[in-house]
Amino acid sequence: MAITLGHNQYGKAENRVVRLLRDSEPHQILDYNVSVSLGGDFDATHLDGDNRNVVPTDTSKNTTFAFAKHDDVVQPESYGLDLARHFVDDIDPVTGARISLEMYPWTRLTHDGAPHPYTFMRSGSHVRTACVTYDGAGVWVVSGVTGMTVLKTTDSEFEGFYTDEYTTLEPAKDRILATTVTAQWWHTDHDRDWQQSFDTVHGALLDAFAGHYSKSLQQSMYLMGEAALSADPGVAEIRFTCPNSHHFAYDLAKLGINNGNEVFHADDRPYGLIEGTVRRDDAPDPGPAFDPGRGW
Amino acid sequence: MAITLGHNQYGKAENRVVRLLRDSEPHQILDYNVSVSLGGDFDATHLDGDNRNVVPTDTSKNTTFAFAKHDDVVQPESYGLDLARHFVDDIDPVTGARISLEMYPWTRLTHDGAPHPYTFMRSGSHVRTACVTYDGAGVWVVSGVTGMTVLKTTDSEFEGFYTDEYTTLEPAKDRILATTVTAQWWHTDHDRDWQQSFDTVHGALLDAFAGHYSKSLQQSMYLMGEAALSADPGVAEIRFTCPNSHHFAYDLAKLGINNGNEVFHADDRPYGLIEGTVRRDDAPDPGPAFDPGRGW
Amino acid sequence: MAITLGHNQYGKAENRVVRLLRDSEPHQILDYNVSVSLGGDFDATHLDGDNRNVVPTDTSKNTTFAFAKHDDVVQPESYGLDLARHFVDDIDPVTGARISLEMYPWTRLTHDGAPHPYTFMRSGSHVRTACVTYDGAGVWVVSGVTGMTVLKTTDSEFEGFYTDEYTTLEPAKDRILATTVTAQWWHTDHDRDWQQSFDTVHGALLDAFAGHYSKSLQQSMYLMGEAALSADPGVAEIRFTCPNSHHFAYDLAKLGINNGNEVFHADDRPYGLIEGTVRRDDAPDPGPAFDPGRGW
Amino acid sequence: MAITLGHNQYGKAENRVVRLLRDSEPHQILDYNVSVSLGGDFDATHLDGDNRNVVPTDTSKNTTFAFAKHDDVVQPESYGLDLARHFVDDIDPVTGARISLEMYPWTRLTHDGAPHPYTFMRSGSHVRTACVTYDGAGVWVVSGVTGMTVLKTTDSEFEGFYTDEYTTLEPAKDRILATTVTAQWWHTDHDRDWQQSFDTVHGALLDAFAGHYSKSLQQSMYLMGEAALSADPGVAEIRFTCPNSHHFAYDLAKLGINNGNEVFHADDRPYGLIEGTVRRDDAPDPGPAFDPGRGW
Repeated sequence: MAITLGHNQYGKAENRVVRLLRDSEPHQILDYNVSVSLGGDFDATHLDGDNRNVVPTDTSKNTTFAFAKHDDVVQPESYGLDLARHFVDDIDPVTGARISLEMYPWTRLTHDGAPHPYTFMRSGSHVRTACVTYDGAGVWVVSGVTGMTVLKTTDSEFEGFYTDEYTTLEPAKDRILATTVTAQWWHTDHDRDWQQSFDTVHGALLDAFAGHYSKSLQQSMYLMGEAALSADPGVAEIRFTCPNSHHFAYDLAKLGINNGNEVFHADDRPYGLIEGTVRRDDAPDPGPAFDPGRGW
Repeated sequence: MAITLGHNQYGKAENRVVRLLRDSEPHQILDYNVSVSLGGDFDATHLDGDNRNVVPTDTSKNTTFAFAKHDDVVQPESYGLDLARHFVDDIDPVTGARISLEMYPWTRLTHDGAPHPYTFMRSGSHVRTACVTYDGAGVWVVSGVTGMTVLKTTDSEFEGFYTDEYTTLEPAKDRILATTVTAQWWHTDHDRDWQQSFDTVHGALLDAFAGHYSKSLQQSMYLMGEAALSADPGVAEIRFTCPNSHHFAYDLAKLGINNGNEVFHADDRPYGLIEGTVRRDDAPDPGPAFDPGRGW
Repeated sequence: MAITLGHNQYGKAENRVVRLLRDSEPHQILDYNVSVSLGGDFDATHLDGDNRNVVPTDTSKNTTFAFAKHDDVVQPESYGLDLARHFVDDIDPVTGARISLEMYPWTRLTHDGAPHPYTFMRSGSHVRTACVTYDGAGVWVVSGVTGMTVLKTTDSEFEGFYTDEYTTLEPAKDRILATTVTAQWWHTDHDRDWQQSFDTVHGALLDAFAGHYSKSLQQSMYLMGEAALSADPGVAEIRFTCPNSHHFAYDLAKLGINNGNEVFHADDRPYGLIEGTVRRDDAPDPGPAFDPGRGW
Repeated sequence: MAITLGHNQYGKAENRVVRLLRDSEPHQILDYNVSVSLGGDFDATHLDGDNRNVVPTDTSKNTTFAFAKHDDVVQPESYGLDLARHFVDDIDPVTGARISLEMYPWTRLTHDGAPHPYTFMRSGSHVRTACVTYDGAGVWVVSGVTGMTVLKTTDSEFEGFYTDEYTTLEPAKDRILATTVTAQWWHTDHDRDWQQSFDTVHGALLDAFAGHYSKSLQQSMYLMGEAALSADPGVAEIRFTCPNSHHFAYDLAKLGINNGNEVFHADDRPYGLIEGTVRRDDAPDPGPAFDPGRGW
């Protein structure tokens, strides 16, 4: 028995890259948080402190900012592909790369009633994400959204559930349903208009959330996934994390007041956490497209 | 010399009240974070643990949720006034109240191209605030906005500044100007359509930010304040906290690349912090309208 | 009626200064977050974008790091005094300065059972703070602590309180009392061993929290303040913010289980918020020592 | 081609359970954040809103608090095992469970120089974690630590690294090395004194961090892992996430001041992120012990 090095990776995380498109009129702004993770032959630095194969994380930072000058920067997926291919194809000791990106949307402000060419307000309704994985042969592109909080004031029930001796929940015939969606979807097609694909899936998620009667958050999540895959044939699989953000009707009866299903306490913790996958039954295995599951 | 009790106050903070308007079609949602702070004759509990004058914070919580049934709940200012007047006028030991409210805006979703009557998405572009102070005689109402992030990609310079032996900054002829605005404005007129007033001031702040050439964030802040007071004659004074969210042009020259004022690092800390007041020169003293400055 | 500029201030906030003492054996580490706020004659930049009186916030950053080489850096109070005096005394347009400091404590690690000369672990039990205000004539020094979470598992009750029609709380004969203390204390004596004073007050706060039977958090807070002032005659006034971190006995009876006052839910929001001042009755007015109350 | 449901799981996350041991003298406090995730036959709720197999997340909350009365609650690993076995063995539709626990350490306060029987201060130097996975046959127990910030003021270099056209980093002969360790280690032996095991591994991590000269954070991480596995033969594998918390020597030379490797800026973002695994070469595959890698 000996102690050995297992899987490892490293890079520069959370590079806050802002790229302006100034040649165009009006200006555009691209606002990214880019994390780089590289795999390869790095045993020597772990075991002996021999860094000859170690690309400094400072170099991956420089590279990330330098590549923000490329045309591919306009979409998180193409920016990630550009970076991933460089790290693996151009640097000998690097055999795999994962680029994770967050993109913060901005809204153009108006002035005197017209769109202003240079001024923006950060739109906080969601964050767009992408994750690109490349191992020198295969490439996996995952798009996503996080921090998208949606709520139904009615058309949501939760009834007929399993009960045991620890169950005290009453069935709910009309409840608030609220969640902050994180979704990630894997593309089998890479020859795409990434913006159009994002808009299609994002729109399908919101439209599906609005347009159904919910019997459980699981059902709502599945319907959103089904709508996303139906809307974009280039997407093979979508994975969700949906906290159930509980809105408890406040007990006003103890004060002699009829709540009327109108006054709620928005609770913080604990919360339900619903996670699931929706996929095409003929889709290939996603391999390392999603988080590789090393407990990191 | 003896040790004594000085100023004190207490209450229930951060009540997360959600009120639905369900009688109307379509539904509306009011999403609040309400903090209650009460002053009065509370020496006995501090000095002797005698609680006979202490309204439990649990009671102020119950009250906050109960009052969410009132019609005044539809605007943070009127909801705060309703609560403040109750605590001071109806509870003997309480002689002063301050109600601080955050209101989170939601956007109605569409379905099949039409506004959906029951479904919403949280809009993250800003938080609306209000702070109501009442001492049994005078009442002070402050409205505000926080978390409103705005950015100019050009039309911003910073030059001609004071220099000393610790100055190394180069003048900037064309920089990104970005800030996350917190503004609070004090109303001398209380007989108002609060929504209309908020929309007027909020719109004036954004329009002013868009429509000027900035020589300093101080100037931009003043212009926003001036625009707000010009737009709403019922507002006497506005106070700002504006972090200067630095976007540093990334040094690509060291890589042999011309940045072209296009690639920036959005830094976290430290940041400039610009704070200031804009007021009418004939306005009365705001008294306790704003934070009372006790180091809390 | 005209619109005018009111009170204003600015500077560089949250400079994360780490200073090593390397000449000594063993090494020491000083870990600061320093915020600078300057007042003075800054009308021109607000009104006309004329920056000739504006010391760039970048200069106050440089200065803050440069002064970390001075001997005064070893205590937050003396570091703050050094900086405040420089800004006001050496820079013409600056007539007032406030330096706010957080100091993060580190614990020396051991190796082979002995204290290690170069290696530390961040101790998260509290943050030490200081705030120094100087206007060219007077100087005010406030020391403090924040993020200090303490808890009593018993010896705490809350009974005999005021009730009205919104009161449903049951008296508690034996409850968990928990709070995260923020305290700030003002020194009338400046010729001090700041470390010794901090240790004295910090120790008195903890000892008083442990050594009493609590009838209300207000009483506990007052006793802590009384102990602090009794322990350090150079301190004239102390101000507290103490959230009441509710631990609710979980209702296990509905599951047929006797809780026995043993199982609690540590709730997040809402929370009680208890704020108060303890002072010597012959102490002078603290003037601007504490937060100046401009709603910032 | 059809759209189908893939892997899914759900439960109540972040139950903030506080358990007092009051029978003993002195009292003890156990402070947990417990997240429950259940797998099983839940197709019907996703596809049809048929909840008959769905154990409400409210029930898993009740269960988590109820089991806090059991003796196994005293260690996160045994508390997690108790819960996981119940959910899978006692509830028909549930075929798998993962219980993730955070445990917040508290320090007993002293009063009049003696340990106080009822009063505690939260110790913020680290959070202890555990993750228990059970599928009805196999069980996997992972212990861990997170939020443990350590720093070396010297005995750290970074030299001899790979360079390319994007490399501008200068070799560092004497740098601050700082990281906030997250480590998770997998036990092949379950018949353990969990507290003793945790103390052994935790102590080994800190001792190894102190007692080496570092040529890279990768090497430091590996040495910590090697020390942990050497110290506890019941641990087969340990996985690390170690951000490289950059402390940049502040450029005082531009101010004519010699830094002397004494004054640093503790930067926030970006940061290096070093992740790796240390394992016994004869250890079995950890299976689902660590995060299962579904992108959640």
